[in-house]
Amino acid sequence: MKVRIHVSLKPGVLDPQGRAVHHALDGLGFTGIEDVRIGRLIEMEVADSTTDEALVEMCEKLLANTVIENYRIEKVAA
Amino acid sequence: MKVRIHVSLKPGVLDPQGRAVHHALDGLGFTGIEDVRIGRLIEMEVADSTTDEALVEMCEKLLANTVIENYRIEKVAA
Repeated sequence: MKVRIHVSLKPGVLDPQGRAVHHALDGLGFTGIEDVRIGRLIEMEVADSTTDEALVEMCEKLLANTVIENYRIEKVAA
Repeated sequence: MKVRIHVSLKPGVLDPQGRAVHHALDGLGFTGIEDVRIGRLIEMEVADSTTDEALVEMCEKLLANTVIENYRIEKVAA
């Protein structure tokens, strides 16, 4: 089973990497960009028997820093 | 308009960060994990007038390293 975990900074948390990319896009001449935020995309291949609870536990314990980050678990159809 | 850009390493490109996370998950006692790959998730708020061509150009020029990375552009309904 393929699982994608989207980890993004919570609103209000400063994102220096996003600001740098925003600034670089402006510098390259792209207009109309209002905001850029950068997160992580974790793609995992796990056994079909893996439970939702186990996936949530992985996120809470290791994959996301829940103090400053949100995560979303997406199961990808095989 | 909200746009999400998913950047992931091409198959075959070594992913040390993914291997470290895989190892850490094993160490935490999670079983059945076959593969972990880590990419970036770029969330942008852009003007509605931004064309698909401009988004592709942003990816090719700055957001992804197309030698080793694939990208996918997803427009999120407002």
